[in-house]
Amino acid sequence: MTTFTVSDLARRVGADVLGDPDRRLSGVASLDVAGPGDLAFFAREAMREAVRGTRAGAVLTPRSFEPRGVRFSVLKVDDPHLSFARIVRLFHPEPPPPPGIHPSARVDEGARLGEAVSLGPGVVVEDGARVGRGTSVGPGTLIGRGARIGVDCRLGHAVSVLHGVEVGDRVRVHAGARIGTDGFGYVPAPDGAHKVPQIGGCVIGDDVEIGANCTIDRGALDDTRIGERTKLDNLVHVGHGVCIGSDCLIAAHVGIAGSCVIGAGTQMGGQAGVASHLKIGAGARIAGQTGVVQDVPAGAELGGTPARPRRSWLKEAAHLSRLPGLFRRVARIERRLRAREGERPARPDRSDEESA
Amino acid sequence: MTTFTVSDLARRVGADVLGDPDRRLSGVASLDVAGPGDLAFFAREAMREAVRGTRAGAVLTPRSFEPRGVRFSVLKVDDPHLSFARIVRLFHPEPPPPPGIHPSARVDEGARLGEAVSLGPGVVVEDGARVGRGTSVGPGTLIGRGARIGVDCRLGHAVSVLHGVEVGDRVRVHAGARIGTDGFGYVPAPDGAHKVPQIGGCVIGDDVEIGANCTIDRGALDDTRIGERTKLDNLVHVGHGVCIGSDCLIAAHVGIAGSCVIGAGTQMGGQAGVASHLKIGAGARIAGQTGVVQDVPAGAELGGTPARPRRSWLKEAAHLSRLPGLFRRVARIERRLRAREGERPARPDRSDEESA
Amino acid sequence: MTTFTVSDLARRVGADVLGDPDRRLSGVASLDVAGPGDLAFFAREAMREAVRGTRAGAVLTPRSFEPRGVRFSVLKVDDPHLSFARIVRLFHPEPPPPPGIHPSARVDEGARLGEAVSLGPGVVVEDGARVGRGTSVGPGTLIGRGARIGVDCRLGHAVSVLHGVEVGDRVRVHAGARIGTDGFGYVPAPDGAHKVPQIGGCVIGDDVEIGANCTIDRGALDDTRIGERTKLDNLVHVGHGVCIGSDCLIAAHVGIAGSCVIGAGTQMGGQAGVASHLKIGAGARIAGQTGVVQDVPAGAELGGTPARPRRSWLKEAAHLSRLPGLFRRVARIERRLRAREGERPARPDRSDEESA
Repeated sequence: MTTFTVSDLARRVGADVLGDPDRRLSGVASLDVAGPGDLAFFAREAMREAVRGTRAGAVLTPRSFEPRGVRFSVLKVDDPHLSFARIVRLFHPEPPPPPGIHPSARVDEGARLGEAVSLGPGVVVEDGARVGRGTSVGPGTLIGRGARIGVDCRLGHAVSVLHGVEVGDRVRVHAGARIGTDGFGYVPAPDGAHKVPQIGGCVIGDDVEIGANCTIDRGALDDTRIGERTKLDNLVHVGHGVCIGSDCLIAAHVGIAGSCVIGAGTQMGGQAGVASHLKIGAGARIAGQTGVVQDVPAGAELGGTPARPRRSWLKEAAHLSRLPGLFRRVARIERRLRAREGERPARPDRSDEESA
Repeated sequence: MTTFTVSDLARRVGADVLGDPDRRLSGVASLDVAGPGDLAFFAREAMREAVRGTRAGAVLTPRSFEPRGVRFSVLKVDDPHLSFARIVRLFHPEPPPPPGIHPSARVDEGARLGEAVSLGPGVVVEDGARVGRGTSVGPGTLIGRGARIGVDCRLGHAVSVLHGVEVGDRVRVHAGARIGTDGFGYVPAPDGAHKVPQIGGCVIGDDVEIGANCTIDRGALDDTRIGERTKLDNLVHVGHGVCIGSDCLIAAHVGIAGSCVIGAGTQMGGQAGVASHLKIGAGARIAGQTGVVQDVPAGAELGGTPARPRRSWLKEAAHLSRLPGLFRRVARIERRLRAREGERPARPDRSDEESA
Repeated sequence: MTTFTVSDLARRVGADVLGDPDRRLSGVASLDVAGPGDLAFFAREAMREAVRGTRAGAVLTPRSFEPRGVRFSVLKVDDPHLSFARIVRLFHPEPPPPPGIHPSARVDEGARLGEAVSLGPGVVVEDGARVGRGTSVGPGTLIGRGARIGVDCRLGHAVSVLHGVEVGDRVRVHAGARIGTDGFGYVPAPDGAHKVPQIGGCVIGDDVEIGANCTIDRGALDDTRIGERTKLDNLVHVGHGVCIGSDCLIAAHVGIAGSCVIGAGTQMGGQAGVASHLKIGAGARIAGQTGVVQDVPAGAELGGTPARPRRSWLKEAAHLSRLPGLFRRVARIERRLRAREGERPARPDRSDEESA
C-alpha cells in the first residue's frame, strides 16, 4: 500500500500545514467515511457539519479555514477540491491498459498504429484508420475506415468511432458512445421521407471527454465539432453539424439538435434540449430540462420551456402556485362591482368569467 | 406444444373455477386476440369491454367477477395479473442459455467462474473477476477487472460491467447497459476543467433489473448503490454516488444526478430528473418529466418543473389554460373602475396594465 | 475524382439550366463553404443571404428563383433539397460493405444467410435466424434466435436484434440500437415486483431507420410494431406493445411508453414523451419536450406538459411572463375598492390576498 506523509502531500499542492506534518496517510475518502489514515477535503459551506464530525487524519481546507479544536492535520490550499483531485491519483494511479495488441483484435493492413497502442480483445481497426501513440482501445470497439485517433486517448468498451471521424489527443470516450453516426436528415416527398446522405465529418478536440452511450452524429455536409476540453456526461445526443465550443459542460440526457452553435464555456443541466439551427452565446448557463427554442445571448442564464431568463422562470413558477387564489380574488372583485352597480354585465363581457 | 387443463392452472395459482375445468389450453394472450385455446386475464375496469367480447377459452378474473353469460372458463383469483405472470412461464419457459464457455470468450487466468456459467461468443472476463453459478453472459459483454457477479444472473448482449463493480444474485442486465462508468466530476480551474478521478465502486443488489442502454456511474469516492428488487427501464442514467433504495421502479430516460439518495419504493415516471445531492423520501411518486430540485418528503406525489405536489401542479395547469381570459377580466375591471372614477390613474400605477 | 457537368446533373433531376451547362462539378457543399467546383442548394428563405454570397459553381433553386447578377449556374427544380439529396450520392456513393462473412463471425448451423450478405468481425447469428440477400451486418452485432432480417438492410456496429424480431427490407439500424429487449412489466406483490415475462414479438417495417443507441422493447403479449418508412433518431425509447404507424418522424430522446398507438405520419420533437396506453391520431405534431398524457386527435399540434394545443401552450407561456404584473394590478384594484368602500372585507374573504 502506497503511503504519503502530510508534508509530502502538502508539497505537491502548495499547502500550508497545521498539525502533525509527519502523519502517514494511506488513502482518500469523503469527510463522512474517512478514517485516521485518510485525507479528505472541505470545499464549501454545505460540508461544514461533516468537517466537524470527521474522523479523517488530514483535511484539505480553504486558506481561510479556522481550525479550532480539530484533531486532523490541516492542509490549507487555494482550491481544496482541485488539490484533492490531484492527490487522488497518487493513491489510486490509473491502471495501465494491457500492453499491446490482443490477438483477437482485427487491424486492417491499411491501418496505422502508433507506439505503445493498446487494443483490447475484438477491437476492429479498419482500412486507413490511424491510432496515435499511447492510446488504449477497449474490447469490442470499432475504429472505422479512415478515422484518426490522437495520442494518449482512452476509448472504453464497445465504442463506435465511425469512418473518417477525427479525435484529438488525450480524449476519453466511455463505453458505448457512438461518434460519427448518420444525422437525422430527410426530405419529405410524396413517396415518403427521402434520406439525405450524411457525408460530413466529425471532429473531436483535444482533452474532450464523452460519456457512456452518447451519440454524436456526423455532419450532413459540414462537420460536427466538439471543442477542446468540453465534457459530455452520459446519454447526450449531439445532432449533425452541431458546433460545440471549448470548455463546455453538458450534463446527462441533453439533446442538441442539428446545426446548433454552442459558445465556449456553456453549461447545460441534465435533460435540457436545444432546437435546431440555434446559436447559444459563450458562457450561457442552461438549467436542467430547459427547452431552448431561440438564440441565447452570451452569458445568459435560462430555465423553463420555452426557455426564458432563469430569474423570470423561477418568479413565474412561484406566482403560478398562487394562481388559483388570484382567480378567486378576481371573481370576488367582479361580484362586488356587480352588487354595487346593481346590474349584470352584458353577455359578451362575461365570456371569460368562470367560477374559480 | 405444451398444454394444460383449466384445473391444472387453477391449482397452481389457487383459483376457483367456474365453467369447464377440463378444457385444454395451449397458450396465453391478451383479451383482444385470444382464441379458444388461450388463457387471458381481466385485471381492471378499463378491460371491461374487452372481457365481454373476448374469444378466450379461459380468463383469470378477480374474486368478485360475476360471469353472466360468458362462454369462457373463469378462474377467480386474488390478483389476476400476478397469476397470469406466473402462468405465462408455464407455456413459455425461458430458453436456457447455451451451455458452457464459447471458444471465442476470453477469460483471464485470474478470473473465477462458478458452475454452469454460460459465456457467449466474444465475452471478456478480466483478471480477478468472478462470475457466480448459473449466470449467463451474452455475446460481447465485458466483465472488468475484479468485478463480481452473483449467481443466476442474466447479462445481455454487449453489456459493460466495469472494474470492481459488484452485482448481486438473480440480477438481469439488458443489452448495452453500462455499469461502473466514470462519473461526471470536474473541478473548474484556469486551464479548464480538471477531471476528478472516479475511484468509488458500484454495488447492484439482488433481483435488480437494469434496462437496455442504461448508464450507471461508479462513485467518485463513495459507492453508487442500487437496492434489492429495484427495476430500471431503458436508457436510465444514474450519476456517481447515487444511492437508490430497494423496490423502486424507475421508468425510461430518467436521469438521477450525482449523490442523490432515493428512498425505498420510490416510483419515477419516464424522463423525470433529479438534481444532484437531493434526498427523496421512501415511497415517493414522481410523475413523468418532473424536474426535482429540492428534497422530497416520504410518500409525496410530485409533478412539474420545478417539482411541486402533483395535485397543485395539475390544478395550476388547469388554471393556466384560463389565464388569457383572466387577463381580459382584469382589464375590464380596470376600465369600469376608471370610467366610474372619471379619472386616469397616475402613471406609475399603470405600468403593469397592458391590453390582453 | 468523379466529375459531372451541370447538364449531366440537370438531366437526372429534371432541372432547367440557366448559365453554363458544361461547367464541370466535382462535389457538393453547403452555400457557405462551396467553391467553384461545387454544387449547392437554395431551399428556403432563410438561405437568401447565403445564396447571394456563395462561391458555388452551381446551385439548385426553386423554379421561381430570379437569378439576377449571380455567377453560378442555376438548376431550377421543384424541390431543391430533394434533388440535392439525390445528387449527393452521385459524388459520394455509399461504400459497399466488405464482401462476405468475416472469419471471426459466428453463424449457427441452423441460421440461413441470403446471397451477398456481409457479416463483419465478431458478428453472431444464432439458431434459426435468417438474413436476407444483400444485407450487411456491422462488427459485433447480434442476430438472435429465430430473428429475421430482410433484404438490403444495413445494420451498424454492436447492434442487438434479439430472438424472434422481424425486420423488413432496406431497414437501417445504427450502432448500439437494441431491438426486442424485454419491456418494463411488473406486477406489484407483497414480496416485491414480479416480472411479467415478455413473450411478444417486435416487427420493424420496410424502409425504417433506427438511430444509434435506441431501445425498442418486444411486446409483453402482443407485438411491438414500427410502420414502413418511419424514422427514429438516436436514443429513442419505444415501450412494449407500442404500435407506430408508417411515415412517422421521431426525434432524439423521445420516449413512448407501453401499448401506445401512434398514427401514421406523426412527428415528435426531441425529448417528447407519451404516457402508456394512449392513442395519437394520424399526422399529429408533437413539439419537443411535450408530455402527452391523454389521447390526441388526428392532425393535432401539441406542446407543453401536460400536452395541450400548441397555440394555447405558446399563448399561455406569453401570458405567464406577464403574471407578476397581473398580481400587482389585482392588488391595486383591491386597494382602490377598499379605499372607496371605507371598509375592510371580512376575514375569510381575504384569505387569498397577498402582496405581489
